[in-house]
Parts: sequence; C-alpha cells; structure tokens
Amino acid sequence: MLLLRTTDSDFEAKFAKVVRDRRESDTQVGRDVSGILNEVRERGDKALIDFTKRFDQHNLTSEDDWSISKADCEKAYHAIDAELREALETAAQRIRAYHEGQLPEDRDYIDDIGMRLGARWTAVDAAGLYVPGGRAAYPSSLLMNAIPAKVAGVERLVVTTPTPKGEVNDLVLAAAHVAGVDEIYRVGGAQAIAALAYGTERIERVDVVTGPGNAWVAEAKRQLYGVVGIDMVAGPSEILVIADGQNDPEWIAADLLSQAEHDPTSQSILITDDAGFAAQVSDAIDLAFMTLPTAKTAKASWDAHGLVVIVDKLEDAIPLTDRLAAEHVELAVDDAEPLFAKLRHAGSVFLGRNTPEAVGDYIAGPNHVLPTGRRARFASGLSVLDFMKRTSFIGATDAALRAIGPAAVRLAEAEGLPAHALSISKRLS
Amino acid sequence: MLLLRTTDSDFEAKFAKVVRDRRESDTQVGRDVSGILNEVRERGDKALIDFTKRFDQHNLTSEDDWSISKADCEKAYHAIDAELREALETAAQRIRAYHEGQLPEDRDYIDDIGMRLGARWTAVDAAGLYVPGGRAAYPSSLLMNAIPAKVAGVERLVVTTPTPKGEVNDLVLAAAHVAGVDEIYRVGGAQAIAALAYGTERIERVDVVTGPGNAWVAEAKRQLYGVVGIDMVAGPSEILVIADGQNDPEWIAADLLSQAEHDPTSQSILITDDAGFAAQVSDAIDLAFMTLPTAKTAKASWDAHGLVVIVDKLEDAIPLTDRLAAEHVELAVDDAEPLFAKLRHAGSVFLGRNTPEAVGDYIAGPNHVLPTGRRARFASGLSVLDFMKRTSFIGATDAALRAIGPAAVRLAEAEGLPAHALSISKRLS
Repeated sequence: MLLLRTTDSDFEAKFAKVVRDRRESDTQVGRDVSGILNEVRERGDKALIDFTKRFDQHNLTSEDDWSISKADCEKAYHAIDAELREALETAAQRIRAYHEGQLPEDRDYIDDIGMRLGARWTAVDAAGLYVPGGRAAYPSSLLMNAIPAKVAGVERLVVTTPTPKGEVNDLVLAAAHVAGVDEIYRVGGAQAIAALAYGTERIERVDVVTGPGNAWVAEAKRQLYGVVGIDMVAGPSEILVIADGQNDPEWIAADLLSQAEHDPTSQSILITDDAGFAAQVSDAIDLAFMTLPTAKTAKASWDAHGLVVIVDKLEDAIPLTDRLAAEHVELAVDDAEPLFAKLRHAGSVFLGRNTPEAVGDYIAGPNHVLPTGRRARFASGLSVLDFMKRTSFIGATDAALRAIGPAAVRLAEAEGLPAHALSISKRLS
Repeated sequence: MLLLRTTDSDFEAKFAKVVRDRRESDTQVGRDVSGILNEVRERGDKALIDFTKRFDQHNLTSEDDWSISKADCEKAYHAIDAELREALETAAQRIRAYHEGQLPEDRDYIDDIGMRLGARWTAVDAAGLYVPGGRAAYPSSLLMNAIPAKVAGVERLVVTTPTPKGEVNDLVLAAAHVAGVDEIYRVGGAQAIAALAYGTERIERVDVVTGPGNAWVAEAKRQLYGVVGIDMVAGPSEILVIADGQNDPEWIAADLLSQAEHDPTSQSILITDDAGFAAQVSDAIDLAFMTLPTAKTAKASWDAHGLVVIVDKLEDAIPLTDRLAAEHVELAVDDAEPLFAKLRHAGSVFLGRNTPEAVGDYIAGPNHVLPTGRRARFASGLSVLDFMKRTSFIGATDAALRAIGPAAVRLAEAEGLPAHALSISKRLS
C-alpha cells in the first residue's frame, strides 16, 4: 500500500504515476488472443474443441459436453438452497425494475417546415453473454448481463462460460433459469468471444457480446469491436472510498477488501482527511488478512496497488477522484450530497455510510458492469442501450424539400459531390 | 453492377456472398496503423511532424503550420459566399434542434424499500473530431460531429484535419466557427487519432474521438478503442433504395450515384419489384457517367459493388434489407409506412419519394455519421450520448440495507467473496 499526503512535496508526481498506471494486460496477450481469434474464425468448432481441452481440461464431444439445456438450468434452480434461490429472485426482480426505467423513448414529430423527423429504438436480434468461471463462478454477472438484454427485448440470449475439468456451477445455471437465457455453451476465454462474434458450426453468431472476463477475454472483445458490438473493454476492478474520520474503520476496511479480493490487479483506494483514521483502517485491513479466506489475493492487491491519500479537506478529494475516474466511488460521510454534486467521473457512486459497494454488486438494482481503468471519463455502465440500436428517419414533403433543399444543394456542390446535389435538384425542378 | 432476381436458383448463394463481403481494409493497414500509433505515443510531436511531412507534404514548423486560430475561422466565415454561409447556418440550426431532443434525462428516485437509486448524465471533458481532407473537405462532417458534442456540453472541442500541401479549406473553417470549435490542428490520418488519444506536447489528450475517415483513420480508432471512447468503426458508405416502378428513374439513379461518388469502395443497392424500372435506372446511371464530374469514382463503385435485386413483391425486400443492415435505406414508394414498420436494421431511413438521402447528409437534422458494413444490426448513428456518460448511484438507509442486505450476503458467500459479504454484514450487526 502506498501512502500519500497532498502536502508532500512530491505528491503530484507520485499521484500522477498512479493515474497513469493502467494495470493493463501486456502486448503478449494481444498476440496470443489474435492467434486464438484467427483459429476460431478459420477452424470453427474444431478450434473450440482444441482450446477447451487445452485451457479448461474439458472435452467437447457429446451434446452435453458442448451445451447445457434449459431443463438442466431449471433442475439446478430447484436444487439449490431455498434462501439462495430467494436471493437470486430478489436480485433479479430489483435489477429488472431498475433497467426497465432505462428503456428509451422513440421520437416521431413534424417540425416547423413540415419535415417528419424521428428515431426508433429496436433490440439487437441476438446477444452473447460471457460468464467467467475459473477462480469464481459469478451468478450475479449472469443476472447483470442477461436481464438488461431481456428487458431490451433481445430474442436470442446466448451464454458462454468455461467449465474447467467439466465442472458446472449450479448457481450459475439457476441464475440462467431466472434470467431466461436461451442457450448456454461450455466454452470460455478468447475462443468463446470469437465463437460469439464469428459464429461456428455449432454456435450461431450474435450481434453484441458483453460480460466481464480475464485479460484474454477483455482483449478478445477489444479486437472484435466492430465485428460485433461490445459493452466496454473491462479491466481490473477498483474502488475508491472517500471517508471522514467518523466511520467505523472495520466497515471501510471491508469495503476496500471487497475489491482487493477480486484479483491481485484490483485496486483499492482510500482518501480521507483524518490520518489517524487512515492508520486505523490500515490496521483493520492487516488484521483481516489473518482470517479472510481470500486473504492471499486481497493482500497481493493491497500490497501492489493499495493507495491511501491524506487530504487537507475532504472536498480536496474530488478533483483527485475525477482524475482517477474509478469504477466504484463510496462517499462515506453523513451528507454525501455536496461531494456528489461536485464529482464528475465515476462508474457508480455509493452515497453515505450505509451503502457498501457490495450492495451494488448484487442487489441494489443498477448494473455492476461498470467502466474500469479511468474509462468512466467517457464510458458508462452496462444498460439496456447496449442491447439496442437507434434508427433515425426523415420524411420530406414536397414543400419541406423546397424549403431546405436549395441549401443542401449549395453545400453538396461546395463539397464537390455533384450527384448529392443532383438527387435533390432533380426533385425541385 | 450485379443483377440478381430472387427467383434465380442461385439467388441465396449470391446474395449471401454480398452480405458477407464487408469491403474492409486489409490486414496490412492494421500493421501500418499499429506502427504509426506507437510512433506517436513514443515520439509525440516529432512523430506528427514526420508523418505530416510524408503523408500531407505539409511542414509543421511555426504556430500557424500547426494550428488554425478561432480568429482565422471567423475570418473564413465572413469570407465565404453569403448563400453558403446561410446554408451552413441553416444546417447548423436544424442539426442543433434535432440533437437537443436527444439529451437524456437523469433519474433519481426512492424505491419501495427506501433505497435511493438513480443515474446522472454528464458530458466528457474533451472531445476530438476528425474531419477528412484530401479527396474532399467536408464542412458537413464538422457540423455533424461538433454540434452534438457542444449540445452534450463538451467544454473542449478539438478538430484535427489534414491540410495537404498546406491547403486550408475556408468552408471547413467557416463550419468550425459556426459550430464553436475550440482548437484545430493541421494533422490527419492515423497519426491525428493517436495524438488525440495519447496526447502530445502540443495536443492535449481528449476523452472521445469521433468523425469519419479513410481506412487508416478507421483502423486507428478501432485500435485505440478503450484508450478513448470512439463513435463507431466507420467503413465505406452505402445506400439501399427500395423502389417501386412509379419513381422517376433519374431521381433514383441520382440517389444511387450520391453514395457511389464517395469512394470506389462505396456500395449502392436498388431493390425493386419492377425489372423494367430497374433497367431504366441502370440506363440513367450509365448516361449520368457521361456528364457527372465524379463519374470516375462513381463508376468504379457501381461496377465493383453496385447491386440490383428484382423481387416478386416489394415487401420481400425487407428481410433482404435487414440482412444487409445498410447505412442508408430509402423507401421510395407512395406510402412508406407499412415497409418501415417491418424494417429492423438500418442506420437511417428516408421515407417516400421526396426524401433523397442527400437531404439527410446536410440539412434535415439527424446525424449523418451512421453505422456502415452491416453494423446497423447493433450500432446507432452519432448522437449526444456519444459525448456523455452515465454515473449510476445508490444510497441505502439503515432500513433499506436491512431489507435486502441479507440476500446480498448470501450471494456473496455463494460466489466465494467473503469480504463482499463482510462489508454488508458488519453494517447489519
């Protein structure tokens, strides 16, 4: 963990280094992924079989090796613990309600010169959702990706998820049942993203691919952007907590650890105006490492990327936070409003002492797929809009064309595009 | 030009080939661009000087070589032809009005368990707009990119545009004045996109890069996606006209030529239920080649990529059109509504005989930056949303956390993330 004080003479240089440090995958990943994508594009299912055997120690032979049926998902749903089942349903219902409020409205109007103008939103035909397996299987990821797609109106919803050594996670299947997923393939990594984007004999191509994943999955999405739509390039998770000295240090320690336990490349940042409180939080984190089952990962993250910044006044935290444009920002103070009003760049904001970030990961309703790596400067969390597209439309009456056509003819001629001009002038003469 | 009839026995195979043919840049472009991006990232302004000298025969030495001032834009605005100036103003006013209607509304509400939920939209800090030079300078492109950014609330709007052999286009500068552009740099190609994304000594980095360009520019945007936000990977332009036999063949010929004249890789497609009419349009196009100043480009495009499909009934055109998901779709019939209601995938639709596509390029109001290469299956035209991002927020009262916290704890434990669970359970105990 790095401790900085804004009053340190070298603060700006050291903080700027943190801002620049993107914790990104190296270029070797880029080359590896490029090779995998080409293999899947050219060899289709055969390539998927090879990669899945090599990376997941899983043989894609029979139908059951390749895919998981809706009936199996329903069976898993009934097999899991009743309280967990209820938790999944509660989460799904709240996520659905929040995302239904995102559905955009069409426009269709006649303007002052009689020109009909508008825009119509429609869902994509098919979406592919990546659900990580491996280190941890995430039913919450499935809900957060699948529900917005279904709310948007996507008819064909495909999940790909690795099943290392053939191991299937009942909770993920139960979540797929709750969310109404249409197809599930037991393929992971960059090869899964390639299959979704290009299509193979067995897996029909989709229009949009979303969902988090490791560096290979993220790089595959980046490279296939444009072949399909993608949500956003996802990097390591991050949390930034702005806290005064009135918080329980153990609460804030847990919040910081909740991101650190994701991955050694995750980043947890505390900004506070109380150096004594910062020391208490740091002590609480060290203490938690003794008992936390995920301590190894969390400690690796905290040691390498943890950051504590002591500011003079809490509002000094805001410009620093905007520069970091973190995925999750907690405002752990009595009245979060004044700080929140000034903040510009963050994926999601958690207001007040009673809103730990984890409540947003699972159950609050807003999406937990959020921009990382300073991308909150320009990107947003996953929403129904990622599964929809807008078609603009224009309808001119003869009178409307006469009103503005001549100006268009002039511009077309000035741009050296005479056929553009002719297509209007022929209709005016 | 390729002529297909849906009744031909090999129609499906031939049409499928058209759908698959993406008319994309080759992989050599990818390697060249990757090299250029690295050079600019590492050598900054020095690389820009080298590339601009090599590709644009323009020396970046003095301040005036590098940039164009606001005063110069204002001067150009007053120097151009008065009718053109008025046309620019009319276009700008109509584009502004249409895009103001796109501004999204924030959400902020308390749900049934007392949880505060919402989303706040804010503009990015800075946007970079690419304006092509070379073959033709496009003031309309500048308006279509700059106005949505300004309507979104972007404070720093940077234009990069090549000025081959130092040549500056007064009309582009006049458009920059009308749109309120803040900085203009005389740099083009992939090197301009790299400068906008990474920043150099002279050009401060931006958050979003938009604007059309050649294959190098498009590939640079694709490779830098994630470092900055981009609008969409742009490919060659395309138009698809669905027309019955009651149209004036010369009007439809001009519409098809208006895309063909853009670039030899552009694509113009006519789908009609009247083979005689198709022949008349084809003849009108051949005739136009004799007089059209842009005939060379238009003929190259029409010969290589032009397509006429004869369908049995006009509504048979709709599923074919959805598969092509073209940038521009004209419905040249008396009542466009029934066809429009069935259409799912298109960048922009032009309704009725009186709405040539070119009216949308310049003056109707909706954006002319639209998804190409079948990307209308998942992508939308440029809008104010491309210059904004959404921050979700969550505020839990103690009671709200008690209502749903336990379910989140269960899910976190099931996912093997104990610190997530602790961050909630500590607040509940």
